[in-house]
Parts: sequence; C-alpha cells; structure tokens
Amino acid sequence: MKDYKMKTEHQFTVTIQPGGRQINAKAGTSLRLVLLGAGVELDGICGGKGICKKCKVKILLGKQALAASPTEGLSKKEAKAGWRLACLVPVLENLVVEVPLKAKEDDRKAQLVSVMRKAKPTSSILKQCITIKKPDLDDQRADLDRLAAAVNLKTLSFAYQVLQKLPLLIREANYQLTITRDGDRLLDVEAKDTSKGLYGIAFDLGTTTVVGSLIDMYSGAVLATGAEANLQRSYGADVISRITYLIEHDDGIITLQQKVIATMNKIIRVLIDKAGILAQSIFAVSVVGNTCMQHLLLGVDPRHLAFAPYVPAFQGAQQIAAGVLGLDVNRECVVYIAPNVAGYVGADTVGVILATEVDKSDEIQLVVDIGTNGEIVLGNKDRLYSCSTAAGPAFEGAQIKHGMRATQGAIEGVTINDDVLLKVIGNTDPKGICGSGLVDLVAQLKIVGIIDSSGRILPPEKLKGLPKKLVERIIKGEGGYDFLLYAAETGQSIVLTQKDIRELQLAKGAIFAGINILLKHAGLDLGKVKLLLLAGAFGNYIKIDSAKAIGLLPPGIKTRQIGNAAGYGAGLLLISDEEKEKAEAIAKRVEYIELSGMVDFQEEFIKALNFA
Amino acid sequence: MKDYKMKTEHQFTVTIQPGGRQINAKAGTSLRLVLLGAGVELDGICGGKGICKKCKVKILLGKQALAASPTEGLSKKEAKAGWRLACLVPVLENLVVEVPLKAKEDDRKAQLVSVMRKAKPTSSILKQCITIKKPDLDDQRADLDRLAAAVNLKTLSFAYQVLQKLPLLIREANYQLTITRDGDRLLDVEAKDTSKGLYGIAFDLGTTTVVGSLIDMYSGAVLATGAEANLQRSYGADVISRITYLIEHDDGIITLQQKVIATMNKIIRVLIDKAGILAQSIFAVSVVGNTCMQHLLLGVDPRHLAFAPYVPAFQGAQQIAAGVLGLDVNRECVVYIAPNVAGYVGADTVGVILATEVDKSDEIQLVVDIGTNGEIVLGNKDRLYSCSTAAGPAFEGAQIKHGMRATQGAIEGVTINDDVLLKVIGNTDPKGICGSGLVDLVAQLKIVGIIDSSGRILPPEKLKGLPKKLVERIIKGEGGYDFLLYAAETGQSIVLTQKDIRELQLAKGAIFAGINILLKHAGLDLGKVKLLLLAGAFGNYIKIDSAKAIGLLPPGIKTRQIGNAAGYGAGLLLISDEEKEKAEAIAKRVEYIELSGMVDFQEEFIKALNFA
Repeated sequence: MKDYKMKTEHQFTVTIQPGGRQINAKAGTSLRLVLLGAGVELDGICGGKGICKKCKVKILLGKQALAASPTEGLSKKEAKAGWRLACLVPVLENLVVEVPLKAKEDDRKAQLVSVMRKAKPTSSILKQCITIKKPDLDDQRADLDRLAAAVNLKTLSFAYQVLQKLPLLIREANYQLTITRDGDRLLDVEAKDTSKGLYGIAFDLGTTTVVGSLIDMYSGAVLATGAEANLQRSYGADVISRITYLIEHDDGIITLQQKVIATMNKIIRVLIDKAGILAQSIFAVSVVGNTCMQHLLLGVDPRHLAFAPYVPAFQGAQQIAAGVLGLDVNRECVVYIAPNVAGYVGADTVGVILATEVDKSDEIQLVVDIGTNGEIVLGNKDRLYSCSTAAGPAFEGAQIKHGMRATQGAIEGVTINDDVLLKVIGNTDPKGICGSGLVDLVAQLKIVGIIDSSGRILPPEKLKGLPKKLVERIIKGEGGYDFLLYAAETGQSIVLTQKDIRELQLAKGAIFAGINILLKHAGLDLGKVKLLLLAGAFGNYIKIDSAKAIGLLPPGIKTRQIGNAAGYGAGLLLISDEEKEKAEAIAKRVEYIELSGMVDFQEEFIKALNFA
Repeated sequence: MKDYKMKTEHQFTVTIQPGGRQINAKAGTSLRLVLLGAGVELDGICGGKGICKKCKVKILLGKQALAASPTEGLSKKEAKAGWRLACLVPVLENLVVEVPLKAKEDDRKAQLVSVMRKAKPTSSILKQCITIKKPDLDDQRADLDRLAAAVNLKTLSFAYQVLQKLPLLIREANYQLTITRDGDRLLDVEAKDTSKGLYGIAFDLGTTTVVGSLIDMYSGAVLATGAEANLQRSYGADVISRITYLIEHDDGIITLQQKVIATMNKIIRVLIDKAGILAQSIFAVSVVGNTCMQHLLLGVDPRHLAFAPYVPAFQGAQQIAAGVLGLDVNRECVVYIAPNVAGYVGADTVGVILATEVDKSDEIQLVVDIGTNGEIVLGNKDRLYSCSTAAGPAFEGAQIKHGMRATQGAIEGVTINDDVLLKVIGNTDPKGICGSGLVDLVAQLKIVGIIDSSGRILPPEKLKGLPKKLVERIIKGEGGYDFLLYAAETGQSIVLTQKDIRELQLAKGAIFAGINILLKHAGLDLGKVKLLLLAGAFGNYIKIDSAKAIGLLPPGIKTRQIGNAAGYGAGLLLISDEEKEKAEAIAKRVEYIELSGMVDFQEEFIKALNFA
C-alpha cells in the first residue's frame, strides 16, 4: 500500500453504495482500509498491495481519486466505468463508491438489495423559488396576497411561521423567495433560491435501537445513516415493562415520549453533521415502529395494548408538525407516522412488507422480523397473515448472564471442534456474547452433544467421548452446569449458564410457534413456503444454519437475510406519497392473528421449546 | 324604598340588557340603586319611594324578584310582561333586566341598539355528546376509528390533544364523550355530556384599551364584559411609536405580542370568574382591532405600515389555535382575526360597518370611530369609502397637561355661566380632565369668547365684559395663557394650557379633514349625509353639541352615539359564520383612501385647525 502524504489532516466522507452509509476517513488513507475499518467485507489476499486484483470497487463520485489510482490489471471498459482497486485508491476528497455485490450468505447488503426495491420520489413536499411583485402606492396589497399571487393559489393555507417571517424576509430577499410547500399548504419561506436543498429523515423506532437515515427528497439518495440506543430503555427492556412504568408513574407517558424524542434528536444531530446540511432544511420525517413505540412517540397512552382486547388508540397513519413533537428539524416538517396493522403488529411490519413486496409475490413467502418482539408475516399477493410473539430481549443480549449488544467486544460467532474458537466484533478480547453468538454457541453445543434435546447441559461424566478441552469447560453452576466460553487471565470469565439456554429456548420457541400458528391458520404446510426472509439487525448477523439447528427457523426453506427492511420501508414512505397509499392499504389488508390467550399457540409454544 | 333583610351577605349578578353588562350586587339591595351605581341612567323624581313610577325596568330572568315586587301603578299587560319599578325590586337572585330605551341624546345604549342588530348563531364550532361502541376480541378497532364511527365521519381530522386524551378518557367516561368540533375537525373530547357549555370571547383590541365580551355560543347572549388597559401602552401611546419601539429592539415584536396576549389573558380571567365557567370550555375567540394591532397580536412585524407604500403583511381574516398564541382558553380554541381593509383601516372598522350595516343603507351615512386613530367610513349600499387619520391620543387624555383617561376623578363635562361647573366621574374631587371634558371645556370657552377662532386664549384685558370669576381664571402660562379649571386647596390645581388647545386642534382637525376628503372623493356635499354615527368609547361620552361647536364633527347632521360598535361587530363575528363571510366581503368592498402624503388632505387639515 502506498503512503499518501497530505498537507493537512483533513477528514473526508466516503459514502458506500448501495445503502448510502457514510464513513469519515482521514485524508490520504487508502480506500480499502477505510472500507474494511467500516466492516465492509472486501475480497483480497495480497494484503493491500495491488497484486491480487480482488478488491475492486466502482468510484461513482471522486475525480481526484479516479485520476490518482492506477488502472493496471483492469479492462479498459472497467477502468472507464470507474472501477479501481480499493487498495490503490487514496481518499483525497469526499467519495461515493459502489461495493460490488457478493453471493456469500453473510453479505447482507447484497441480499438486502436483491429483494428490496427503489421508489420514485413522489412526495407532495417540495421547494419552489418564486419572485414576488413589489408593492407601490397603486398596489398596496398585503405581502401575503402578493405571495399567494406568485404561487398562483387563490386561497393560501400556510404555517404560522410563514406569516411571521414574511414581512421582513420578503424585503431582505428583494422579493425573491423559496417556498416549501406540502401540496397547497405553505410550510416555510426562505430568502433567495434554496430550492435545491430539501431533505427528510426515515426513522425505524425500535424498542431497543433507533435508526435514522437522512435522505435527499429529490433523488431518494441516502446521505447518511445513524443509530442510537433508545433512551427509553432505562424505563424497561420491552414494551410491556414500559407500559408498566407509565401505569405506575403519573407523568410516565411524558417521560417516555421525551426519551424517544431525545433519541431521535441525537440521531438528527449526527446526520446533519455528517451531511453538512441545516436542520431547518429537513421538511419530512417518516417513522415506522411497533404500535406501542408509535403511541409513545405521539405521547398517546398505550396501556390498553397490554390488556384484552388489546386495543390501540390509533391504527391508521398520523401526521403531525415536528415542532409540536419537539424534533430538532424545521418546526413545520411533516412527521408521518406510518400505519399499524394491530396492537402488536406495527408500522415496522408494514415497512417490511412494503420493502420486500411480499404482498405482490406469486409464491408464498414467510417474513420474520426478529427484535425484542418477533413479527411474522406469511402470504403472497392473494392473502397475508401476521402475528407477533414476545421473543423478549434475549436475542439482543439482554437477560443473558454475559449477554451484551452486538458492539465492540461481543462474541458474534462460535466454532467448536477440539476446542472453542470465538469470533469477536472488533477482534478484541471478548467482553460478552451477543444474540448471534448465543445462537451459534447453542447450535454448536447441541451438534457436539453437550446440550441434549431438552436443552440441558450434560454433566462432564456423560461426555467422556468428547475432547478433553471441551469437557473441562463444563463447570458446576447455579441450577445445573455452565459452559465456560472464555477464561479471562484477569477480570471476568464468560460463561453460558443453564438459565441462559432456557431464555433462548423461550425466545426461539415463541418465534417458531408463531410461524406454525400462521401456517395452520392459513391451512398451509411448510413445503408451500418458497422463501423465508429474515429481517432486522439480529436476523442480519445470525448464522442461518445455526438458527435452523436450534429450531429458531424452520429447516428446508431457502432463506435470505435482508437487514433493516423496516427502516428501508420508512425510506420509501418518506419520499413517496404512492408508497404511503400502499402502506395504508397493506395495514388494512393484513389479517392479524391475536396469539394472546390462544390455546393453540400455547401448545405450539411448548412443543417448540425443545431442540428437535 | 323597602329595606330587604337577607340571611346572608351573598353577592348576586345583575345582567343589563341590551348590552349584557354584568354587575355584582349585594343580596337584598334595591335594583334601582344597583343600576344607578353602575352608571345606568334611570328616570325618577321621588328618590326611590315607588311613587313617581318612572324607573320602570323589565325583569327578563328572576322569578323571586318578580314575585317579591309590587305591580301597583303598572298596567296588567306591563306586569305580565315582567315590567316592575326598579326601586321596588329586591335583588334576591341573579337577575337579567332590560332597561328601557330613552330618546335623550346622552342615552348611548338606546342609540346603540337602534342602529345595531342581532345575528343568528351559525358557528361551525359546536359540541355533541356521543356514545362509542365498546371493543372486544372480535372488534379490536382502534379507539380513534371507534370515535370516527360514532361521529359518522369517514376520515377524521382532529387536534393532537384529542388523540392524546382519547385512550384514558374513553374508558373513564365509560364510552360516553362530548366532542367539540369545528366543521369536520375535532377540537377536543371531554368525558360524559358537557354539550351545553360552549363559550366564546369577542375582543376589541384597541391601541389604548382592550375590551372582551364572554358570549354563549348557542344563544349569542353576552354573559360578561371586561376591559383592561392595553399593556403595550408602556411601549408607546400610538401605533407609530410602537412600531418605532420594535424597530429599535430586536425582540420588540415578541415583547409587544406578549403584552397584548397578557392583556387579553387578564380579561379572560375576569370574564370566566364573573360567569363561573371553565377556560377550557371557551372554543371560539374573535378579534377586531386596527391593522397594526392585528399584526402585533400575531407577532407579525407591522413596521412596513409606517413607510410608503404602507403595505400590511396580511389583509384577509386569519385563523389560529389559541394554544399557539398563548391565550388562556382551550388550546384548540379557534381564534378568528377579522379581516382588515388596508394598512390604516382595520378590522375594527369592518366590525363597525358590520354592526351598523351602513353597507346596506339606502341613505348616505357617515361613521366616525374616534380612538387614538380616527377611522371614517362614508357611503351606503352602493359605495363605501374609508380613511384613517392620526388623531393622536389627545381624546384619550394623553399629551394634555392634566389629561387622564375617563376613570374616577376625571372631569367629563364642563358648564360655563358666571363661573365654571364641573362634572366629575364618580362625583369626587377632580384629578384631571378626560377627552369628553376637554371637548366640552374648549367648546364652552369658545362660546363665551375666552378662546378666539384661532384657538388662542385671550388675555384678561381683552375680556372685560365677562364675569369677574371667569376672567380671574385666565392666568399667565407657558407660551400664552392658561385657564384655571380647578384650584385645589391642597395639592395640584387643574389648568387648560394653550398647548393643550393646540393638541386638541390637531386632533379635531385631522378628523374633520378626513371627513371632508372622503366627501370630496365621493363627490358628495355634506347635505347628502343623512346620519352621522359616532362610534367608540370617546365618541360615546362626548357631548355632540360641544363636538360640533369646536368643529370636530360637521354641523347640521342628525348624529347618533353608538358606543363600541367595533366590539359589537366582533360579537357578531364570534357566533356567526355568515357574519364572517360578510366581513370578508366588506373588507374587500370598502374603497380605501390613503391620506398619507396627500396634498388635498394637508390643505383640508390646515383649514380645519381653526374654530370656525
């Protein structure tokens, strides 16, 4: 790798397509290191020396980078199209690069793109530069009437700030203004021509994590993405515990609303800093999330979701000005709260359906979105069923003795041969285990026979045939045996407890039972399901084989991991009014199966607890 | 008068019709004393002994009072209709009484009624008690959808608070709610049946004084009236000085908006206390005021009204939620800001036209509304002209050496014979002189010859023929002579200075010149004007003869004082959507004559300065 010397230690932004994720890069760094550092998987066996020619990427934007990087070993056609070897590309400016799709199962972005689609921007929110006629003594019409004439609307509907800004702005700007409108309603006025800058943010409001994407409203391009832990987590790990909190505290609903707004505002700050735009130029926000999260965002008490007959306060899409909620964007920014299916199948599921178009599929598909709740959709263009099961936060590392979220130091993969090999996020010493690591570990222990089909960790004396190093890891714990995963020289060792396995069994049992109930309700057997789509952050990082081995997912179905499909759906809803109409139709069309109190479900659940 | 003994010292409310003014009265007091104490002029020469039968009033509401008061000396028909002698009526409960119209010129209420009219309540804002279907496991529709079905609206438009209140309220109220709607939009929900209580407040936003009337939205009845000094007065006595203030202070517009809102909130508090209703049940507010005041209320910078071409930021009617402005009524109360004619002829003038129906008159009428600005309307059903002249605050007692507002201690009338007789509000020692007193005084001085036609106070040596007591009152002052009005034994004497007369000349000259310009513009001479209507608080208390004597009003026209016609117009606008449509039409129809910089006006003004 060359050593690119730069005069300044400037930071540039590298935008990775598809997906639009943005990374800061020190000027002069090689693009390969930047991409690897960001977790992008690039082929390459020469270690970044420009020899193996495997780390090809396409430079979509970056004139200097194209000029500065050699094209040897590339075809003329490739070179002309912008392909370069990432290891030979210096980051000399802001770059937009396309990383080629790979067929490997763990390349999630590729699969995400293969089932998801783009939408044409058709938002009713738009900007327009106008010139207003100057007044004189023969034309004393009011400023507002002058503005109405310029936008060619007979009756003007407008936000309060338009009227308040108008008289001074109109003259400062010498009668040239940019208006932002939502259909016939004026949201804002700015001096001079700012019509190019119109942005929106698509939010996926998870119980545990909130993700936001800053999107150019004209092109639909993702300019930046950011995620933050939902600040509501201090008030309960799941929906039911948050409802309990607000029942027990008079101002609980206000607190929970403020916390989610604060989380969103943290993301907004990050996104506008990354993209270098003004918060005032954000005029659209879309939000998907489960029904309870949608209620909490609006400060609407969701407690009745917790009691039969599980009735939400609202189901359809809602619209509200950002200023009313306290979001740090333009106060008249239109916040679109996507519609929910029912009390426990929310707008996030609508977003998943929208992104995957399972509602248009000829073949029967199964979509499983695993978060703190597991939402399941089954069907095709003719019929759609959905249900929700309380998987609990085990998949997100909670309620597991050494569980943690999938961040730096989390064991995310486990291989067991003669001994145990750990894959740790960030290649550091392990600090704990995350959901995908847990599934992997239990699957491997099941395969080698350390765990029996009931989920019990067998005592060492029953495992005499296994390698000694493995058997030594089985140690006496509370209520059974623990499996020692990592023995720290100093500090805490990491173990899997018998109770951890029980937690996992409850979680996977709930998902699997949900799938079976939907199949039963639809009168279908598993063989009819042609494709299983696995959505959500956890689903994206899990090993499919392991998930099938522990009975979290049914075997024998082609399975794709599609990443944050709900968030992708939020993006579609942000930029397109057509998608909003589709979402409303989907929310009404999906048949919701209430599992609470259903005897069938209890039976399926108990059956699904074991490892088959 | 009888002496009515009561068990308790309870206070009752007496509502005086027409006008709806409310007065507190100690239980057992005679109605005559209550009315006299409130400044209502009742005939009567026997001193309240039930002998002269002159103080007849009609009891509209008050069963006990009707039963308790004798009907001797009244015809059977009169007695049956509720007529009684006020001196014999004990206040034993809350009363509503009608005071008979009198022909005397100083009976303003009578005249007010003779030219003003009632409107049928036709507001789109109304309350409705509904019952909502309870949910069960077979009907899990959301609360909001359940509500929409109950109000029989397919798509529901609603204020945010409706959604926030709904889930808890609906169950507390056992599915019986009262909704308040404005057309198809839901403003609020309340538990159980509260559909009877729906109120509004009509405001007249004067530069100097703000008046509000609390009105029952169903009947149109005035339940209480209150007035407060506009708290903006500390920032300038007139429109131009307030604009100067906000030009010189960065947050001037915010300060001025807050001050007028604070003034309105003071009035709101008084009104709801008087009427014993909840602020939350006020769902309509209407506001008339001059164009600048309408801007300041909305926090919209009015500075361009002060510079050619004198363009307002808005002219048409505006609507805004009370919560946005910070008015202490229901946050979704619809605040209707009535339309203005032009930069200097505001919604108050539209209110006057609406109340007087000069726009429907066959004959030519002249309407003069004298406040800090004088607005003048001329015309009939075929054509209407208007202009505004800056009379200044002299008529409200400002910029006059011993000037004061028309409150306790103000000299409001002057008679000059051999000496000077003063009429003082509240019959106390005089503290100063108010507008009507000033006009009266100058008119009298002109008549006896102490002031010449140029406005000069003549020196004593030129007034040898006058009574000695009068001549002695002419004393040397700054820049001429002063006229001693009241020599206090201790404390301050009250004088009229030469400069005071000059201020009055400027004020009356401006009004008179405005009238002449309108006549000229319309191609009419004074003889064609059949009726002159004098609106506004000052116009209500002035002596017409005196006003004509000093050349404030033209001679030889039948003149009526109609009181606060602008505020009355605001009441019409509050309760009736039809009146709102009329107001919009009037505001567009009236031809506005811009006096600023008009050479003709300057000439007329200079001519009008002298006392003819």
